[in-house]
This record gives sequence, C-alpha cells and structure tokens, in this order.
Amino acid sequence: MADQQAQSREGRKPSDIPALRWDEPPEGPVLVLLDQTRLPAEEVEVVCTDAPALVQAIRTLVVRGAPVLGIAGAYGVALAAARGFDVEEAADALAGARPTAVNLERGVRRAQRAYRAVLDGGGDVGEAAVAALAEARALHDEDATASEAMAVHGLALLDELLPGGGHRVLTHCNTGALVSGGEGTAFAVALAAHRVGRLRRLWVDETRPLLQGSRLTAYEAARNGMAYTLLTDNAAGSLFAAGEVDAVLIGADRIAADGSVANKVGSYPLAVLAHHHQVPFIVVAPATTVDTGTPDGAAIEVEQRGSHEVTEITAPLVQVAGVEAGGGVPVAPLGTQAYNPAFDVTPPELVTAVVTEHGVISPVTAQALAELCLRSRQVTIS
Amino acid sequence: MADQQAQSREGRKPSDIPALRWDEPPEGPVLVLLDQTRLPAEEVEVVCTDAPALVQAIRTLVVRGAPVLGIAGAYGVALAAARGFDVEEAADALAGARPTAVNLERGVRRAQRAYRAVLDGGGDVGEAAVAALAEARALHDEDATASEAMAVHGLALLDELLPGGGHRVLTHCNTGALVSGGEGTAFAVALAAHRVGRLRRLWVDETRPLLQGSRLTAYEAARNGMAYTLLTDNAAGSLFAAGEVDAVLIGADRIAADGSVANKVGSYPLAVLAHHHQVPFIVVAPATTVDTGTPDGAAIEVEQRGSHEVTEITAPLVQVAGVEAGGGVPVAPLGTQAYNPAFDVTPPELVTAVVTEHGVISPVTAQALAELCLRSRQVTIS
Repeated sequence: MADQQAQSREGRKPSDIPALRWDEPPEGPVLVLLDQTRLPAEEVEVVCTDAPALVQAIRTLVVRGAPVLGIAGAYGVALAAARGFDVEEAADALAGARPTAVNLERGVRRAQRAYRAVLDGGGDVGEAAVAALAEARALHDEDATASEAMAVHGLALLDELLPGGGHRVLTHCNTGALVSGGEGTAFAVALAAHRVGRLRRLWVDETRPLLQGSRLTAYEAARNGMAYTLLTDNAAGSLFAAGEVDAVLIGADRIAADGSVANKVGSYPLAVLAHHHQVPFIVVAPATTVDTGTPDGAAIEVEQRGSHEVTEITAPLVQVAGVEAGGGVPVAPLGTQAYNPAFDVTPPELVTAVVTEHGVISPVTAQALAELCLRSRQVTIS
Repeated sequence: MADQQAQSREGRKPSDIPALRWDEPPEGPVLVLLDQTRLPAEEVEVVCTDAPALVQAIRTLVVRGAPVLGIAGAYGVALAAARGFDVEEAADALAGARPTAVNLERGVRRAQRAYRAVLDGGGDVGEAAVAALAEARALHDEDATASEAMAVHGLALLDELLPGGGHRVLTHCNTGALVSGGEGTAFAVALAAHRVGRLRRLWVDETRPLLQGSRLTAYEAARNGMAYTLLTDNAAGSLFAAGEVDAVLIGADRIAADGSVANKVGSYPLAVLAHHHQVPFIVVAPATTVDTGTPDGAAIEVEQRGSHEVTEITAPLVQVAGVEAGGGVPVAPLGTQAYNPAFDVTPPELVTAVVTEHGVISPVTAQALAELCLRSRQVTIS
C-alpha cells in the first residue's frame, strides 16, 4: 500500500523541488528535508533519523509552511515508529515544535492514531509502524490533491473578481511547492493563472525577517518562468497607491472559528492596505487549517521568535572569499531587543474570501466555516 | 565670522555624533562625513575634497536624511568655491544628486546665491568662497535651532494628544542627529519626551532595504539611553492591533503644497495602519521641507533605486573570520528584479499634524502650509 501511494505521487508529477521525502537506505528509514534556510544559494538536504532531529529542523525552519509541517509531523511519527523509538513521546515533541500552525499537530496526531489503532487491534509494533507511514503518505497525497483543487477554485475566483484578465497579484511569505505535498496554496493559484496566461505580474514581498519571499517564493517563481518582481514589505503601500495590485493572495497557518486568519507577520498590514484600497484579500489554505477549537483571533497563540532574527541578518550561508559568511551579520547595536512575532492575525471583516480544496467561502463567517469543517470531515470519512 | 559661528555651534553642545563637519587641514579645506553605511559596526569618516566626491557620498547614502542633505549641499558649494573649482557646475551636480528631498537643492542654491552675490557686488572669488562657507554654516546653525524648536512643539503636541503620559511612539527610518545640524526631527521629539521621563517606549522600524532603523535609529536610541525596541517593518501591524502604539512620529523629505508627504518608503503603510486604528500620525520636518512649487503628491518625483538593495543584503561591512563580509550577500535568485522606490507619498487626510520649527499645523491644509511658508520667509528675512 505504501508503495502504491508512492507511485501515485509519481504519476501526479510531483514538483521538482520536493520539500521532503521518505527514504529507506540500508542504514534504516530517514526523512530527507530540503534545507530551506540555505535556499536559493544552495540546494542542501538535511537527513533526519529520529524525531528530535526533525523537531530541531522544524524549529530552525529547515522545513516550514503550514501544510508541509503537517506532512513532516506525520512522517516524524512514522520515523520514530519505524526506528523503534517511543512513539508517544516523539508525537508530543513534534506536535509542540511550533505553536501557531494547526496543521503540524493535526498531521502528528493522525499518524499517531493510525499507529495506536493497529496496536489496539492486536497488531505488533512493526505493523503499527507500517500503518503510521501509510497514513503519512496518505496525508502527503491528500495535500497534493487539495493543492490542485485550491488552484482551480482560486483561479476561478480571481477570474470572477477580476474579469479583465491579466491579474497582478501580491503575495507574502512562501506558499508554493516548498510548503506542500503538491504545488502549494496561494502560490498554486498564481501558478495556475500563469499557466493559462492570465498572470500579468506576481509581486513578491521579501518577508522579513527570514526573507522567505526573496529566498523561496522568488526561487519558485523563477523556476516556473513566472513574471515576478520582488519588493521590500514596506514598498507594498506604494504599489497599492499606484493601483498596481489587483488582488492579494496569501496562505494561512490557522483560521479560527470566527474566520480570523493567523499567517506570516506582515499579512495583517496587507489586509488593512487592501481594505483601504478596495482590493480583494484572498486567503488560500486547506480545510485542515480551520480550527473550530480556536474561537477567535485573540485565542490564537502567536509564536514569538528570538531578537537575533531581526538584529542579525540571516542571509543564506554563502562563500565570501572562501569563508562562510552571512547567517548572522549584526545590523543593530549590541544588546538591541527586538519584537519578533512570527505571525499576525487578520480579522474576518478584512478577508474577502477563504479558498479551500472544497471551494470558496465569501463572505467569511463562522457559519460558513463550520459547514466547511463538517463537509471536510464527511469527505475524509467517505 | 565663520569662526564665530563654529563657536556658537560648540556653545550649543552639538551632538557627539556629528553627521558632517567642515575642516581646514594644511592640505586645504574638506568636508568630513560620518559614513552612515558602516554604522553601527564602525565609526568611519569619509573625507570629501571636491563636489564630485560629495555627490558620490550622497548617492551611496554615506550621508542621508533631508535636513542634513541641505547642509551638506551648501558645504559642497563652499568646498568647490574654496578649492577654486567651477561653482556653478558643482552646484548643479550637487542639486541633482538625489531627486526627492527638497532640502538638498535648497541648501545648494542658498550657498550658490551667497557666492554669486559677492561676485555681483564686485568681490573676488576668495571673498565669494568665504561668503558661501558662511552661508553653509548659517544653515547648519539654523537647522540646529529649528531642531530644538520642533522638539518643543512636538512634545507639547504629544502631551496634548496623549494626556495620560508615558508615550509609546513608533518611528520609521532615521531622523536624529545623523540627519540634522541638531538633534533631528521626529527623533528629536521622542528624545525630548525621553528627557522629561514621558517616553515609555520607542518602537523602531528596521526600515528595509537599507536598515536605517536598526543601524542608525537604534544606534542613536542606545547612545541616548532610551527605552527602544526594534521590529521588522511588517510587524508594526501587530503592535497597532495590540494597542501598543500611541503615536507615529516620522520625518519628511518633501511636503507638497496640498500637504502630501514624501518620506522613506514604508511611511504610507504606517499612515494607513494609524488611520485604521485611530492613532495620531505626526510628521516632523523643518519648514524648508514644504515645497509650494510641488502642487500635490502626484507631482513628487520618487527616486527609484537599484534592485541590488533588495536582492542583496546590504549589511554594514564587518569582519567575518578576518574577511570583510556583508554589504552584498545575495538573498534572491540571480537575475531577480526588484521594485525599490526610496520613498512613498502619504496624502494629507492621513496626516494628523505637521510639526515645524514654527509650530504645529493640524489639520494639514494647503492654506495652513501656505501661511507657514509665508511666515517662514518673513522669519528668514527679518
């Protein structure tokens, strides 16, 4: 079954930039991650042989992005199981590696449930490990399918909102193949528009402090031959004022029951700008991102990260005159303290639409989200 | 006369971080600039012996900030005159070195007029050069005086708008002693609040792409013992949403006749956020920043700078393992194009007040600005 699913992913032509892959060399199973902290300078793989290594990779953003964190978490449970580590302990450590993206804990718990179900049914740990891996692979596949569906729904929404064609889309952070089992969330919509010749320009926010926009989104846009232009986050205002933005497309790390959207810091200012300029602000995320257990924006825990990400430039490591430089060049006085939330929260009244694999929600209301979750569960069960 | 004025500046206790100074070593007169591109890592001086060197320093931001650019431009004319170069040619080159800050051209033309007036009155080039230098020094002194007055008016405005005391002020870019003959514009207001114990927090936007906030404002805040916290520009939205910002204080590079404010890119998004959250957005600038010759925001020429400022990290040069690194670490794929306006324009309806050395304008109307300019001219003539 695991092999079948691996083949089905191949049949679907996965991106040529896999964010992660399961491998089984003679030394034992491993989870191989593309080190996103070193892109675009270098394509380096990080090999995780146990859950603690994966937790470290998640915390240091070797792998990041809501959907792929769920997949990585599920594989992490499968890895612990396959290598005979304590699966419950590994699952808890993985689920808590980063607090904001709901997908991470969901992926972990799903593989953990599959593992437990086999044991509860009288199976042995070897069979349980196989089940956990199968579940991770199923999640991986489902995410790719969801990605395709989101691209279709998102493009239809763009075409409806902007009948003139030639969309000029602003995006923030990175939401492409690097965060997904498929081609991503918001980026997948822009890519779909590009493929049918209706993307006039992808405006790429660089996304400080870690520059996921310039390092990762520009990298994916360049590889896909898209017309893209990079900008500092604070230059977006000038683009709106000049009428150069037709729509904002972003992802989400968690959507509360009331429709509040937690996403990469800098999303909320874009929502306010879009509102001020009457430009659609569109969130693209799989239905699993909706967390009915979180009632509203105030209940979303926003991860606060270290000052050094702001006070030092965390450029990808490069060779300067034969010496590794970057990755920690101080740009502020010693001892400077920084306010560094990884995410911000956009209230539902500033969100024009939420695009999921099941369709478009607009306006964004608690009731519509509750119905989506119900439908999503039915789909999963069926 | 020149010596007298130099002494008067000393009597006024100039900042211990002089952005520029005129010097007369045996080899001939020079204009010495504190290289702002190397702060805070190093305090290095750049010595300009002619106008082309100064033009280069202005273009590469060794010296930057609207008020001090006017002073530098005036000294540049004096330098060309003192060293016997073509003063008219030097003045034109200096006036056009950067397009957006109106103060630069104003300072240049003022020293040029003083030079010409001596020649027109039958004086020789030596006497004309002395007059040009005296005019530059007068401008330098006036700017320091204006800075003090802006701080007084600005603090009174803060206290009036925020009677509770304990101001939490957000600022963008750098507007302190480094941009001024005195203690600056917006920063001088925050510093005045700090000195009377009413500054609870200075939120410092890092100000991409060139990080004038982290490199220069944090440096000035640290040296003055202020309670400051650095943030990425896109994290300001989270602060507004959390109710942590009582007022925004920024400078200006040009204020059009209708009250539109050109300032460092990222100012406009802050104005929109401040408006959305009903937080005062206060512009602090000398009256010379108002340009009645520019009718409105659309008529302001916004300098577009090179892609490399965004696609490469321009951290201050530092030693990494004995090798100079930073200052050009690529963070985006090769060939990436960037949209990189140096400034943006905030319309007057988003500006709560303009604070000048002559007092506070609020609401910001064309008539109030015209009256200010009239008063400003009278003060200068009297």
